[in-house]
Amino acid sequence: MTTPATRSRENTRARLLDAAAQVFAEVGLDGASVEAVCDRAGFTRGAFYSNFESKDELFLMLAGSVAEQRVNAVRTRVDEIAADGGLSEGCDPVELVQQIMDAGGDDRLGVMLMSEIRIRALRDQQFGAAYLAQEREMVSSIAIIITDIVSVSSLELRVPAEEAARMLMIIWEGMTVRGAMAGQDSGQLRHTSGEELGRLVQLLLAE
Amino acid sequence: MTTPATRSRENTRARLLDAAAQVFAEVGLDGASVEAVCDRAGFTRGAFYSNFESKDELFLMLAGSVAEQRVNAVRTRVDEIAADGGLSEGCDPVELVQQIMDAGGDDRLGVMLMSEIRIRALRDQQFGAAYLAQEREMVSSIAIIITDIVSVSSLELRVPAEEAARMLMIIWEGMTVRGAMAGQDSGQLRHTSGEELGRLVQLLLAE
Repeated sequence: MTTPATRSRENTRARLLDAAAQVFAEVGLDGASVEAVCDRAGFTRGAFYSNFESKDELFLMLAGSVAEQRVNAVRTRVDEIAADGGLSEGCDPVELVQQIMDAGGDDRLGVMLMSEIRIRALRDQQFGAAYLAQEREMVSSIAIIITDIVSVSSLELRVPAEEAARMLMIIWEGMTVRGAMAGQDSGQLRHTSGEELGRLVQLLLAE
Repeated sequence: MTTPATRSRENTRARLLDAAAQVFAEVGLDGASVEAVCDRAGFTRGAFYSNFESKDELFLMLAGSVAEQRVNAVRTRVDEIAADGGLSEGCDPVELVQQIMDAGGDDRLGVMLMSEIRIRALRDQQFGAAYLAQEREMVSSIAIIITDIVSVSSLELRVPAEEAARMLMIIWEGMTVRGAMAGQDSGQLRHTSGEELGRLVQLLLAE
């Protein structure tokens, strides 16, 4: 049951995550102190530490929240396409990937955040384990979406859905990072990574 | 023509790169100051700046050198396997990938270095362009190796070799980073990423 106290706590966490995203975008992970995030959100450090154990935990939650929003946007778009009859037998999977990608927002913040968090996860094994556990959840969500598309459209995967989801996630991340380095705007980023994902999807499907 | 002056310059650069690798492994990119690298190599800052424009350039060269060594090790291994008749028609491509991976050294340093350099490349567009140009050279070298294997073994690629090389590089990097986060040792890393590369190779080949 959602009590007013739970709602208030969720609201505090959401405001701290919003503030963390803003401060991170401005000054990067090293510059984004707990103090700066609290100042931005209008909370005391006490309020911060009653919600998050550490700065690392805050930014891991933020990365998870960004990833979840991205996967939810994909889910919503797939459902819309399905409702419009776009997943029927004989649909073009490459066209489908680009339609799904076009609906997304700006992936640059998420990729920069993941790149910075990756460094911490490489240096601290406990944090690395937490990062990988969060990522596995994301891969599972993507695998469910893939399974749904495949079952409706009579496409056939050459590998298990979980495996396809992991490859697609790694290629999406790799292409988005490289596009961001090349100074692409959010539309170009989605287009470039969408093209590469389309090629991988063709490989993943039985002919 | 290699003059003694050129050799001396190359020797200085090589010693600075060695020192940079050691200091980076100990304290990470932020901690690895030009001063610390010079102290380790036994050179003055003057010697440093007559060889490299900046710390960023030094570490980009180091990442390039690590990548080049890795690709050269793959090239050598492929040539050995070819000389032993292991690339004949009907060879098992998945087995081949694992044989190639098993010959490598420790990929953790390279992956940590690339992860840190990536952050700089995301923040500085000129540096990003230099990073991407260096990476394109690596992809071309991998594409040549792939083309050679395919032509000898009568395997057939479903995408251009350059495209296959990029996907393999991104998946290798993605899997190695995740393995390093999970605390895998260098042998486990090569095995895990080798398995994933094997699956991708199967997808890349016509049945």
